[in-house]
Amino acid sequence: MLSSNLLRSVFPVSSEWVFSCIKCGSRQYCQKPFKKLTISDALSTNALGSNIRIQGWVRSVRSQKEHLFLHVNDGSSLQPLQVVASHDLNDRGLTFGSAIDVSGSLEKSPSGKQNVELHAKQIQVTGKCDPLEFPFKIKERHSLEYLRQFPHLRCRTNVFSALLRIRSEATSAIQSFFKDNGFIQIHTPVITSNDCEGAGELFQVEPAGKDKQQDERDPHYFSVPTYLTVSGQLHLEVMAGAFPAVYTFGPTFRAENSQSRRHLAEFYMVEAEISFTESLEDVMAVMEHLFKHSTEHVLTHCAEDVDLFHKFVAPRHRGQVDLMLSRKFNVISYTEAIDILNRSSQIFTFPTKWGCDLQTEHEKYLVKHCGNIPVFVTDYPYDLKPFYARDNQDHPRHTAAAVDLLVPGVGELCGGSLREERLEVLRSRIIQAGMEDAYEWYLQLRQFGSVPHGGFGMGFERYLQCILGVDNIKDVIPFARFSHSCLL
Amino acid sequence: MLSSNLLRSVFPVSSEWVFSCIKCGSRQYCQKPFKKLTISDALSTNALGSNIRIQGWVRSVRSQKEHLFLHVNDGSSLQPLQVVASHDLNDRGLTFGSAIDVSGSLEKSPSGKQNVELHAKQIQVTGKCDPLEFPFKIKERHSLEYLRQFPHLRCRTNVFSALLRIRSEATSAIQSFFKDNGFIQIHTPVITSNDCEGAGELFQVEPAGKDKQQDERDPHYFSVPTYLTVSGQLHLEVMAGAFPAVYTFGPTFRAENSQSRRHLAEFYMVEAEISFTESLEDVMAVMEHLFKHSTEHVLTHCAEDVDLFHKFVAPRHRGQVDLMLSRKFNVISYTEAIDILNRSSQIFTFPTKWGCDLQTEHEKYLVKHCGNIPVFVTDYPYDLKPFYARDNQDHPRHTAAAVDLLVPGVGELCGGSLREERLEVLRSRIIQAGMEDAYEWYLQLRQFGSVPHGGFGMGFERYLQCILGVDNIKDVIPFARFSHSCLL
Repeated sequence: MLSSNLLRSVFPVSSEWVFSCIKCGSRQYCQKPFKKLTISDALSTNALGSNIRIQGWVRSVRSQKEHLFLHVNDGSSLQPLQVVASHDLNDRGLTFGSAIDVSGSLEKSPSGKQNVELHAKQIQVTGKCDPLEFPFKIKERHSLEYLRQFPHLRCRTNVFSALLRIRSEATSAIQSFFKDNGFIQIHTPVITSNDCEGAGELFQVEPAGKDKQQDERDPHYFSVPTYLTVSGQLHLEVMAGAFPAVYTFGPTFRAENSQSRRHLAEFYMVEAEISFTESLEDVMAVMEHLFKHSTEHVLTHCAEDVDLFHKFVAPRHRGQVDLMLSRKFNVISYTEAIDILNRSSQIFTFPTKWGCDLQTEHEKYLVKHCGNIPVFVTDYPYDLKPFYARDNQDHPRHTAAAVDLLVPGVGELCGGSLREERLEVLRSRIIQAGMEDAYEWYLQLRQFGSVPHGGFGMGFERYLQCILGVDNIKDVIPFARFSHSCLL
Repeated sequence: MLSSNLLRSVFPVSSEWVFSCIKCGSRQYCQKPFKKLTISDALSTNALGSNIRIQGWVRSVRSQKEHLFLHVNDGSSLQPLQVVASHDLNDRGLTFGSAIDVSGSLEKSPSGKQNVELHAKQIQVTGKCDPLEFPFKIKERHSLEYLRQFPHLRCRTNVFSALLRIRSEATSAIQSFFKDNGFIQIHTPVITSNDCEGAGELFQVEPAGKDKQQDERDPHYFSVPTYLTVSGQLHLEVMAGAFPAVYTFGPTFRAENSQSRRHLAEFYMVEAEISFTESLEDVMAVMEHLFKHSTEHVLTHCAEDVDLFHKFVAPRHRGQVDLMLSRKFNVISYTEAIDILNRSSQIFTFPTKWGCDLQTEHEKYLVKHCGNIPVFVTDYPYDLKPFYARDNQDHPRHTAAAVDLLVPGVGELCGGSLREERLEVLRSRIIQAGMEDAYEWYLQLRQFGSVPHGGFGMGFERYLQCILGVDNIKDVIPFARFSHSCLL
């Protein structure tokens, strides 16, 4: 998967190698006759017989009668490289988890398990690893729960390094999707003086060690109370007043007390806003394209890594993913959804009356009802949706032009709406909510050259859970932050 | 610059157009015989005579004897599209800043100023704009300082929409550079329980409205005090223990009280970490490649937008940029830098004694001394650099393997170092600093399979200032946050 043009140019082939003497600091030179390769490149090269140098971490050690066999991984691919060495290159430091530097010749492997293997001429242990103290054990498949205790080390396991490669590739796929479709990427701010959805559950930000009583006239660093963003939407709407389409992809925050497998205090959101659109169908088309394009990209470019999840973490999940990709997503209105729930023989804990919010149990039922194909639920009751959702001005069942995308396993993956672009309609709703001072700037977006627009947000971790079949959201983010836990 | 495949598929050509009746909510259909194009696409199409529809904001209105001439911009390019209309299509709402929807035929323009123009058959004002209340005035070139007062509207000006297109393209260029060179992108956390450089100037994070005295046994949401990150480096170093090369690109925070033209409370950093490297030259090579690759990409893909800056904001800056790209960056050691400063005839405010930090005035002098080519300054005094910088173990002038990149106009653009990978050297320094409890996890990275590695950070806003010649950092970020100011 990885190319390494620059790494190769940084470590030029068989040129002189400059280093500083660790004693006197003077610059010294030595010949470097071995071409340095990442393991991914070594595995895919055709240059059998060539002298190469690899560096990585020992994943297994087998001492057989004639030779020593090592598996070495450097994170450039899931596959390790097999190193074959004579016993006189053995070293007590060659343990599971240790870092080594191997030079030798790349040869065809006689075994069917790999194409090539490295016949070592030199092995150097650059970083020891005491197997008794190292929390991961050779040949043991530790549970994801166990790995969570070691956020600084879990990237050294196959499963988590695969996750991180997939996460990186999915990020890149999402960015390419938007760029190729003419969206401008906007870095919406993390620190904000508005609370977007009026939601509560906010984190507040002040300089550390500042005593609030110190300066009563100006108690805040920013002169106003400031929070961590819960959504970049309002800032994207600013940009929807100047561009045809914009998006943001960054961290968002909720100070929820939940410790559920679906929630984090810091998580990533993909949010997009499309100008000059008057139909929810347009917004839904972008969501569906985004989901399918990114997933197909990841399945193609991270095939081995994804297979690891579909084999060991969520067996039989691949069929579910292929099904989602091959079918058009369903569309039902909220009113239809309530009818479906009411007609069902299942007994629900929460009410399924028109006007009540859909709960996880309802979402699950609806997805199953739709044959485990993702389903858009549109036109929610007006009173359930935030002030910015566009009023459908219908009656007697008053709805807003809002949509949620429900997917198997995860439930709500995306939420979106047309935004209220009509100045007077928006103003009266904002006044009703008593927020006219805080949202004067937002009203001005409608006062000066307003355009119909709409957009959505997709939870990136939930997206990864959905395509990989990972049950707990804490296992798809490099460093999980949640109530009572902020390791490192 | 923008393609719009999806926008085109979202708005299909001459198909039926679905919308909801605003009175009863029922779905209605109308023929849409005009192909919807972004203005960028309209300007570059060859389909003269075709019926098209564009939407955007009025940038100028000229009423001449026979016709009305409008310039319309939708943010897809700097260039507006000229719309020619007969006077009977005039409307009192056709003012500077208003949003309009125009259908007509695209024709060759008789004027030399543009290739094509749109002969309007229909014009609809979708969003009015009262010129008296709108803070921007037609034909006036407002100063960047003036625009800063309107963070929700300044994207509607040419200069700021050009900036945002450049920023988006530069982001994409940086990400492609790393991807193409085998770096894995890591989303390092914003909320952290460590303070990285022991630097102070931190923002602290707690749930809003939480009274700290409420629960004395567990006063923090995360059970420990938490801060906004000042750097993703330590978290990237975790990943350098599992991958050949990693990077992060995201917001970082400093609660500085400075209101300088070079500082923000929230700014973007590009940070990279390279495993298996023992030489500062490798780290410098990545910095120089990153700078040159991204800049060449932006100059090529945003030529018009960059020209606007080089023409109106920073005249004669293009020569400076071309010079930086055409020459190899200089490398001098800190000790050489001090010699150069001491030999200079210039009188400095701050001392230039070996062991003192370089100040802005020194950085400026050194860059000028190097012919306005960027210069790497290497091997700083050990005591000036943070605990993680690799000890060169030299004497009597004790240095660390750290490097700063100084560039014209901006000063320090990047800072990097080899990291101390030797467990005992690092442990003794951490104990000396009394930080062994907080950094036990960091020591474990060296305890289990340590590898030599190094990396750097580049301030993204300073990078944009450097290539565009923008004096104030507040003018190169969508929403600026600094002491006493957090608008929106």
